[in-house]
Amino acid sequence: MRKIAAVESFFSPEHRETIEKTAAECGFTVDYFSDGHLPADQAADYEIIYGLCSPKDIKAAVNLRWLCCSFAGVDAYTSDDIYPHPDVLLSNSSGAYGVTISEHIIMVTLMLLRQMPVFEQIVRERGWEKGLPMRSICGSSITVLGTGDIGTNFARRAKALGAKVVRGVRRTKKAGDPAYDEMYTLDELDSVLPKTEILVMALPGTKETAHILSRERIALLPRDAYVVNVGRGTAIDQEALMEALNADRLAGAALDVCVPEPLPKDHPLWDTKNLLLTPHISGNMSLGITRDLDVELFCEDLRNYAAGRKLKRLVDRAVGY
Amino acid sequence: MRKIAAVESFFSPEHRETIEKTAAECGFTVDYFSDGHLPADQAADYEIIYGLCSPKDIKAAVNLRWLCCSFAGVDAYTSDDIYPHPDVLLSNSSGAYGVTISEHIIMVTLMLLRQMPVFEQIVRERGWEKGLPMRSICGSSITVLGTGDIGTNFARRAKALGAKVVRGVRRTKKAGDPAYDEMYTLDELDSVLPKTEILVMALPGTKETAHILSRERIALLPRDAYVVNVGRGTAIDQEALMEALNADRLAGAALDVCVPEPLPKDHPLWDTKNLLLTPHISGNMSLGITRDLDVELFCEDLRNYAAGRKLKRLVDRAVGY
Repeated sequence: MRKIAAVESFFSPEHRETIEKTAAECGFTVDYFSDGHLPADQAADYEIIYGLCSPKDIKAAVNLRWLCCSFAGVDAYTSDDIYPHPDVLLSNSSGAYGVTISEHIIMVTLMLLRQMPVFEQIVRERGWEKGLPMRSICGSSITVLGTGDIGTNFARRAKALGAKVVRGVRRTKKAGDPAYDEMYTLDELDSVLPKTEILVMALPGTKETAHILSRERIALLPRDAYVVNVGRGTAIDQEALMEALNADRLAGAALDVCVPEPLPKDHPLWDTKNLLLTPHISGNMSLGITRDLDVELFCEDLRNYAAGRKLKRLVDRAVGY
Repeated sequence: MRKIAAVESFFSPEHRETIEKTAAECGFTVDYFSDGHLPADQAADYEIIYGLCSPKDIKAAVNLRWLCCSFAGVDAYTSDDIYPHPDVLLSNSSGAYGVTISEHIIMVTLMLLRQMPVFEQIVRERGWEKGLPMRSICGSSITVLGTGDIGTNFARRAKALGAKVVRGVRRTKKAGDPAYDEMYTLDELDSVLPKTEILVMALPGTKETAHILSRERIALLPRDAYVVNVGRGTAIDQEALMEALNADRLAGAALDVCVPEPLPKDHPLWDTKNLLLTPHISGNMSLGITRDLDVELFCEDLRNYAAGRKLKRLVDRAVGY
């Protein structure tokens, strides 16, 4: 019998039922493991791994044909070195995180615009101060760098909240979602940054996106611009960003990702001015919507795999997403 | 010459130009005073007061015909006692605060649903914790108590963010904004509360709304419900709410208004569990949009006043809004 290793801890009884039913229809049985770890002495049994499996555990899965990650950012899974053979298909769960991460972006953007961290500090000290200037998503000029599921979910919400213009910037020229007022390619980024009030970064971690928000590009942003990053910490020249924030050359930033993670206790990022830092919490399996969708997307691609069709969320390992 | 006292500090040169131009067209001149205070020895000069004028300064304005408050909550201005004669017209600036207060509500609702205060505490201690359950506006069942400009602006945004159902509860039966999936009157509130996951209160301070969220009604809310109040602190039995929060009989609350304001340093509200408190900052003149709209709405009603038409934002002092 062909076998699937489901290496995840979040499954409800309903999730297991859905997975097992789909697996049975496709001629598979399912074994479950806690997220993170697939025991080496059992790994050879599995044709498919679904979930969060440590990259170092994959080599032992000598009969592996398809690794379906239960998350979107697969940068730790693109190298041939971690696989037992180069033909293992890699897919991700792009599409499961749009709701949760876009709500995170809306939340932190409003917290920055409305000076919420300052008010929270005032309240912790039992003060009662009112007179701080605020800004609004309504009427703002927003640039979304990375127009995948997450960026586009945010773009739709930003438009609904009254953003004046939402620009999408992406790797290749394609027709965009109607949520975007304007679409640009990466080589046009420098012309877009000076007119950006809120820059939202939702990029995968690839060679091309490393330090894409460079020191030079940070300098192109207006002094009153905010930066929000939910993709990968590597996408920003973090040193340059810290300098700009500490020198008030930017209004503020919200980082859910940074370098390294977890952040060491003595890292200067903790004390950076006007920085709203969160410990990589925007995605994860924290929402029921995410967990349900994740299982649904796997089952959809399991049917594709069993029928010999192309996987819908197949990752091009050379490109990185 | 007929005269207007503009008792506000937020006006830009453009605002003054707009006010003066409209005033001239209507046969008025304008004098400016800092917000809060109209000098007693000049008060008799003015037929109209626009802005934030202390209730105790109004009696001296013996020739006053119209008081246009630059804010929405006029509960301190409904008593005949503060006026030089009972025929003074009272209007407010309902319509200027929808954007800023609805963005506040979206922000604090997401902060509650996504456990942001807990994560902020973790980050202050330089920790790196991820595994907290979260919830989403997407798919939620929301009740908006008070369906004026603020409640309706929030309702539209909540629907755009994917709320499953947004119920409006209002004083009288009227056709509601299409943002509401269902409309109820206040006497139906008890039947709506048990199916409410997020209760948003945006009510004026009136006799009818005092303690409308009573101890008994708090007990009708599900244990996992959140309460957000941006109207008046008097609308909630605050003692009962604190007890419910401290006993985990509610998931949490966000209060931008409370009793009394400012809150004394030794008040138990500061230490109430799962409470996100802000110092009455959701409205104010913090947004440019609010300031521009406020001036625009005054000018619109000034034209109505000069032409002998009914004021658009006339307050029924007996009802309180």
